Amino acid sequence: MYNKSMKILITSGGTTEKIDSVRGITNHATGSLGKYIAEMFLQNGHEVTLVTTKEAVKPQKQPYLTTYIVSNVDSLVETLEPLVKTHDIFIHSMAVSDYTPLYMTDLDEIENAEHISDLLTQQNTESKISSKADYQVLFLKKTPKVISLVKTWNPDIMLIGFKLLVNVSKDELFAVARASLKKNKAHYIVANDLNEITGTQHHAYLLSENGVTEAETKAELAKLIFERVTNHD
Amino acid sequence: MYNKSMKILITSGGTTEKIDSVRGITNHATGSLGKYIAEMFLQNGHEVTLVTTKEAVKPQKQPYLTTYIVSNVDSLVETLEPLVKTHDIFIHSMAVSDYTPLYMTDLDEIENAEHISDLLTQQNTESKISSKADYQVLFLKKTPKVISLVKTWNPDIMLIGFKLLVNVSKDELFAVARASLKKNKAHYIVANDLNEITGTQHHAYLLSENGVTEAETKAELAKLIFERVTNHD
Repeated sequence: MYNKSMKILITSGGTTEKIDSVRGITNHATGSLGKYIAEMFLQNGHEVTLVTTKEAVKPQKQPYLTTYIVSNVDSLVETLEPLVKTHDIFIHSMAVSDYTPLYMTDLDEIENAEHISDLLTQQNTESKISSKADYQVLFLKKTPKVISLVKTWNPDIMLIGFKLLVNVSKDELFAVARASLKKNKAHYIVANDLNEITGTQHHAYLLSENGVTEAETKAELAKLIFERVTNHD
Repeated sequence: MYNKSMKILITSGGTTEKIDSVRGITNHATGSLGKYIAEMFLQNGHEVTLVTTKEAVKPQKQPYLTTYIVSNVDSLVETLEPLVKTHDIFIHSMAVSDYTPLYMTDLDEIENAEHISDLLTQQNTESKISSKADYQVLFLKKTPKVISLVKTWNPDIMLIGFKLLVNVSKDELFAVARASLKKNKAHYIVANDLNEITGTQHHAYLLSENGVTEAETKAELAKLIFERVTNHD
């Protein structure tokens, strides 16, 4: 595979799910790791499609780079499905929202509800939800797990997933990453802990069925992913 | 007042209240209007202090510009209090979060709670809240209204507030803006509707006790604020 130009699909940045027209729940991610990875493949003659957000940092415009901008999980899924079907490798470094807002209300409506689950089908009618009550309650629904859809769209694509945990042991991090490897039929999972990421320092493990390698910076991690992916058989 | 260099305090961008170490509720605002306003005063020889966010667009570094970065309402209040006391004019264009997360849980805990208000004192112990449940419920508490504190910190400062509504009539917009003018002892309120803001187009009204003026773009609005503020007696 090494000397052939491949079509690489990369996601970066973090999605935002709207609460109303001015507020949203955001997964914080600068997009800089995805930028490093994209640049590494571009420099080596591969074709890169980057799916990212308006806010994320991006590589400079260049001939073999195509960029798509998405905002929330719905737009991400819609954009990714046709792209996953036409690419060789998918590197999914985006921080995707795991919940999306359904309904926001005050404590009174909750106290007075016969069944809490009745509120899940309510909808806010205002464009900007009123801010009078001292407390508010926001109901959220789980979003589809994008990584679990990838192989149903294209069983042949090579999938590199990411698992970000916060302040966990190496054992726990590895256990969660190995479960994701198996469940999502990924070739690799990048496992990292937010406590070990500051600026360009980025301690991460690259796990596959065959073993583990390690990186200390975003540049190193991008290089490691590139090397593994292009030598993979 | 016109020919004297004044100390202008400006806020811009939008605050984010953390849900956990990776998620937050964000008020979307690019910071571009605040940037226009800051540049207008700087070009005319005034000293500008800009309180903004990491994500917001900012004027270029220059001698008479000092910039402070804040993230959430707590850090905004802490940063503003001493600055309000030492400035002549405060232009508060930042989109400030009106609610901050208290506790996130699943539907079961709510169904089983004797009093919903008991949950307001609960705290999440995980750094990254688990995403297993199909639904989650986020309890939020009202944040302090920063604009209402300004005159308690410095009764002599000239205050220019902002009121952003979404899809309302001109009458309703004016009524809400006039109430804010009075309640917060502001000299001016900029009243605008999100439906009339796209890119550099920015329809806005500048209301005072003496009347209303109007702008169609961010540059026009910045100029209008500058002219009113520097001619004010």
